[in-house]
Order: sequence, then structure tokens, then C-alpha cells
Amino acid sequence: MKKHSVYIYSSAFLKTFCRHVFMHYGVPEEDAEQAADVLAAADLRGIESHGVARLHTYVDLLSAGRINPQPEIKIIRETPSTATVDGDNGLGLVIASKANRIAMDKGKAIGTGWVSVCNTNHFGIAGYYVLKALEEDLIGWAMTNTTKLVAPTWGAERMLGTNPIAIAFPGLKEPPIVIDMATSAVAYGKIEMAKHKGEAIPDGWAIDDLGKVCTDPEGMIEGGALSPLGSERERGGHKGYCLGLMADVLCSVLSGANWGPFAPPFALQQSMPERSVGKGIGHFFGAMRIDAFIDANEFKRQIDDYIQVLRTTKPVHGTQGTIIPGDPERQNEILRREQGIPLILPVTESLRDISKMTGIPFD
Amino acid sequence: MKKHSVYIYSSAFLKTFCRHVFMHYGVPEEDAEQAADVLAAADLRGIESHGVARLHTYVDLLSAGRINPQPEIKIIRETPSTATVDGDNGLGLVIASKANRIAMDKGKAIGTGWVSVCNTNHFGIAGYYVLKALEEDLIGWAMTNTTKLVAPTWGAERMLGTNPIAIAFPGLKEPPIVIDMATSAVAYGKIEMAKHKGEAIPDGWAIDDLGKVCTDPEGMIEGGALSPLGSERERGGHKGYCLGLMADVLCSVLSGANWGPFAPPFALQQSMPERSVGKGIGHFFGAMRIDAFIDANEFKRQIDDYIQVLRTTKPVHGTQGTIIPGDPERQNEILRREQGIPLILPVTESLRDISKMTGIPFD
Repeated sequence: MKKHSVYIYSSAFLKTFCRHVFMHYGVPEEDAEQAADVLAAADLRGIESHGVARLHTYVDLLSAGRINPQPEIKIIRETPSTATVDGDNGLGLVIASKANRIAMDKGKAIGTGWVSVCNTNHFGIAGYYVLKALEEDLIGWAMTNTTKLVAPTWGAERMLGTNPIAIAFPGLKEPPIVIDMATSAVAYGKIEMAKHKGEAIPDGWAIDDLGKVCTDPEGMIEGGALSPLGSERERGGHKGYCLGLMADVLCSVLSGANWGPFAPPFALQQSMPERSVGKGIGHFFGAMRIDAFIDANEFKRQIDDYIQVLRTTKPVHGTQGTIIPGDPERQNEILRREQGIPLILPVTESLRDISKMTGIPFD
Repeated sequence: MKKHSVYIYSSAFLKTFCRHVFMHYGVPEEDAEQAADVLAAADLRGIESHGVARLHTYVDLLSAGRINPQPEIKIIRETPSTATVDGDNGLGLVIASKANRIAMDKGKAIGTGWVSVCNTNHFGIAGYYVLKALEEDLIGWAMTNTTKLVAPTWGAERMLGTNPIAIAFPGLKEPPIVIDMATSAVAYGKIEMAKHKGEAIPDGWAIDDLGKVCTDPEGMIEGGALSPLGSERERGGHKGYCLGLMADVLCSVLSGANWGPFAPPFALQQSMPERSVGKGIGHFFGAMRIDAFIDANEFKRQIDDYIQVLRTTKPVHGTQGTIIPGDPERQNEILRREQGIPLILPVTESLRDISKMTGIPFD
């Protein structure tokens, strides 16, 4: 693998750049600010694959007319605790924030709120939305479906996305527990990384086009598939398949979006699926008011206690011991707010390319 | 392993026996019928570990006064879409059914209903409750926490239960998708089975008391732990840990039950945890009205389509190909309604023992 130089930018600078870029493609200022905020959060939390590294793809889709910069987001069905939202094919980053807000408002009003979204696009990191809910003492849930990459158990082709699930629980003095996980064994990025490095992948990550466990990343990339969480049947891979399917149904079948192998890709060069069974991709959000169930301070005190008990778990030799979900991302955020966001050359080049296309200065 | 003879009983006979046994220990007739129904469902669906095989444990706990046969189940907090239920230390089989009913009624009234339960006990199969919701066009959710058996990632001791998650989605002509899965890589029963057979277990199922992956079932049983779904960190085991933690917080921290390593055991001979941080164990139920989001028939038609598409997945050679979650259990149920429930000798012996203690005829 070519060793890349790393360039450091402040989060604020990158966010401003993104905002201007979105506005250049016709996104209203407030929406552009919102979209830029989601990308900035990904970079701050160290999930670089979902930050400014993706800006060029959003730009590609906006300039090709594949994403509507000025969607009319509509509630198409509603009850006191639910809504179904049609995102009018806008930026997922914007639609998701608005749909999440609807779930939060309903949660505040009557205890819980649940929103399924169709006709939307890639929404960035799922964790962003549950962190927003935490700010208002709500337990937030976020899911999305994505383009097919994962094979169901005993299947030898891609049928499901990596469909992530996020949920967060606040502590009182301790930081929150923040869960944000794809339902595949690993992210596709790890397969690509292994290929670039010329390394084998561990068995359990992927299968080849015959459905055999493969340790050559090429085997997965060329017609193979990612394995669901749990890997093979024997190790519980059918449970990861169940989770991916669950997220897909809640996001897509429940909203009227495209499900399973028919979820449209988040990339200009990938061809569209052979069938359309709904509109765009789908998301699902939930917001539960803590004090709808229990005194919020009591809940948070118990979470503090739980976190402290988990930290005392006897560690496996040679590891750092049990970590609390959300710790690594929060530590990244502290560091990166101080020291800036490191970008590898291909990412800075993609941003310079956008700068050339739009005339918005980059560096 | 000793080869056991198999005895066949009709489901109706076993259910009647269970009902009488529960009544013998002071459980009111309606509750006894409910509890027997949950056990019968487990045996019909082929999840024998949660059927009449567990009756002796319920009896042990009832006769030792560890379970209250006549609980006053109370809603201790409520909003239009939520409730927190105190089960007064009754049978989980009874409390769970009532709490699930509350979630369903709320769901019908305002779109979704969510109930967290404390001061309860083992509730049988999680799938039972989501099947009840399906009967009324509701997407049901069910979770419970359980006694510690699973190590968190990079931890070398038991801190979490196998905390199952269930959810179900109805089809129109196709049978429903029914997901019911523990958040551990495998059930503890599979470790015990390997020990009895003198066989090794696959790597990824369990760790020993030092936290090393172990293939000797004794290593897990004697001070080791089950691995979370996904197994080691490299294969995504931290995600299974996240899911187990999520279920635990929703069931226990949200309701005021005992969480993590402090969940009381479902067995008379196991010692109680060193600390009590709440009341009993916890459950969590949800019920979402399908037509709160989308036309219910349209949803079911799409689920039919989804199921049919999944069934066409290119199969891995040497397997039966992709199966739909819930298919194996439904096939068991069809067979067992016709042919009866096969019980191995130790189970029939445990039922005969109960018969002797109670005077209720068994065979």
C-alpha cells in the first residue's frame, strides 16, 4: 500500500467547506449546515469513512440530479406515537435529522416516538442521531438500510445491506453508552484495506462467489459477499442475518422504501438494482423519554454503576480489558477537537477536486 | 453420552399437566393456564430447553417461596405509549403475558406501546410474546435479561446474560418472519451437550477462565464464559456484547430490575448474586401497529415478496439454502401438533417426580 501523507484540518474549517459545497449544489443554507454537521461528527468521532471522505459522492449524486437538493419532506401517515416520512429523495443527512426530530418531539409529548422514512439517501453515521436524542434525555434509536453487500446464512450472494443499528443510554457522571454497529461481521472498508495491503482477511469476514469462507479479499470483492455478524451458521451467523433483516424491514418495508437487494447504491458509478420495490432507501428512528419509564436521575445513576462494574471486569491478558461502547469514539472526539482532523492524501485530493469544480476555496 | 429413550406425549396432555401443577402451587387457574401455554408453545416449536423440561425448576422456586404464585402486578409509571410494570416476583410466564398485553393495548390505541418490567422471573421463549402480537396485526418486540453467562469483549468473566431479542413481521400469504435469538454466540445448552458427548466445541463459542478461546467445553463450564454473538473482537464480538448490553438496559435499568452480573439465577441450587441493584430480573416489550406506518396489507404483500426473493438466493453448495427466520420452528409446530412432543427420559422422570410430589397423575 502506498504510504499516504496525512494533512490536518480543523473540524470547523472542514465543516464550513462542506456547508458551502452543499449550498453550491442548491441545498438551502440551514440544510447545508445540518448535512455538514453530520459529516463533521463522523470525522470527529474517528469514523472517517463516513465524514468528508464521502463528500465527493454526495456531490456526484447532487450534480447528476440523483439527489434532490430542495426536497419537500412530508409526513405521509401519522399517529400520536408514529410517523412515516417521505424524504422526497433529498440528502439523507438532512431528511434523517428532520425525521429524528419528529421522533423526538413525539417522544417528549407522549413517552415514545417512532418514525420510518422512505425516499431518502445515505444518512452518514447512525450514532449522530442517537447523540442528538441524548441531549434531550431521550433514549434514541437509529437504523438505516444500505446497498446489498451481505449474504444471508447459507446464501452465496449479496442480498442485504450492512444495515446498522444505533442506540444510546446516558449516564449521570459517566459518559453515555453509545452503541453504533453494522449488522455485518465487518465493514466493507476493512476488506478493501486488506486488499490494498496485500494481506489475507480472517476467516469469518466474507465468502466468495460460491459461498465458501474466503481469506483472500479479492474473493469477496469479485462477486463474493460480507458475512453477517456471527459469520458462519455454526458460530451464530444466522443471528446477524436476522438483525440485518430486522433493520431492513423497519426502515424499508414499514416506510415503503426499497428493501433487500433492491436498495439503490450510494455511488454514481454503481448500476441501479434490477427492480424497484419502493422509493429510495429507508431509515428508522425511535426516541423514548427516560422518565416515561423511570426517574431519569435514577436511570443515569444506575448506568454509572453499570459502567463502573463493567470496567472492573477481569481483563483478558494482553488486552486493555472491557471497554464501554462509545468510549473509543468519544476519546477520538476529545483529541480531534484539540488537534484537528487528519485526512489522507486521496481525501484531500477529492476535496481539492470539489474546490476546483465549485470555486469554493479549500487550501 | 447415554442414549435416551424418547417418549411421546400430546401437547394438550402436557399442557393440562403443567396447568394443574401450577395450580397445585397456588397459582390461580387463569394464570396457570397462561403459564402452561407458554411452555407448550416452546415444546411445539422445538425449543425443548424452554418447555416442560423447565417445569421442575418453576416448581422448585415456587415451593421454596422464591416465586410468588399470586402476585399483584402493578403499573408503577405510565404514559400514553409506555408503562413500567412491577411483577411482584410472580411467574415470568404470567407477568410477561400481562405486560405484553399492556404494550399491545397501548399500541392499538396510539400507534405503539412499550413496557419495561421489573421484579419478574424467567419468561420462557421470547418468541411467544411476539407471536401473540402478530395475531392482532402488531409488530411485537420482546427481550429479557438472564443470569450472567457471557463475557464482554476483552473480559475474562461472566458479566451479562444471554439476553434474547425477538421481533416478528407478518406476511399475507407467506408465514411470518419470526426472529428470536440470544445475543450470545450459542446457547449454554450446546456447551453442556458437547460435554456429555465428549466432543470439542468450535472456537468462537466460549472462553476459559483466563479469557482464552477454548474448545474444551469443561473450560467454559468451570469458570469460563460464553462468547457474545460474533465471538472474538476481530470477528465482531464487540457487537454481540453491545446487543446483550442493550437488551439488559432496556429490560432492567429502565424498569428498576437487577442488571448485568446481578440478575438472579433461574435455579434453586445456584447462589444469589453478591449485590442486589434492583428487583428480580427484567423484560421489555414493544407493540407497533403496522397501519400506524403503512397500509397493513401493503406491508404484508411486501413481506411476501421479500420472503420469496430471499428464498431465491443462490444457495451455498451442500446446504438447504437461505431459510426464513421462524421457518424451522413453524415446521416443528406442524409436525408436533400431529405427532406429539418427544421427551427424553430425564424430562419424563422430572415430570414423574413432580407427579409424585403433587399427586397429579402423569402417566
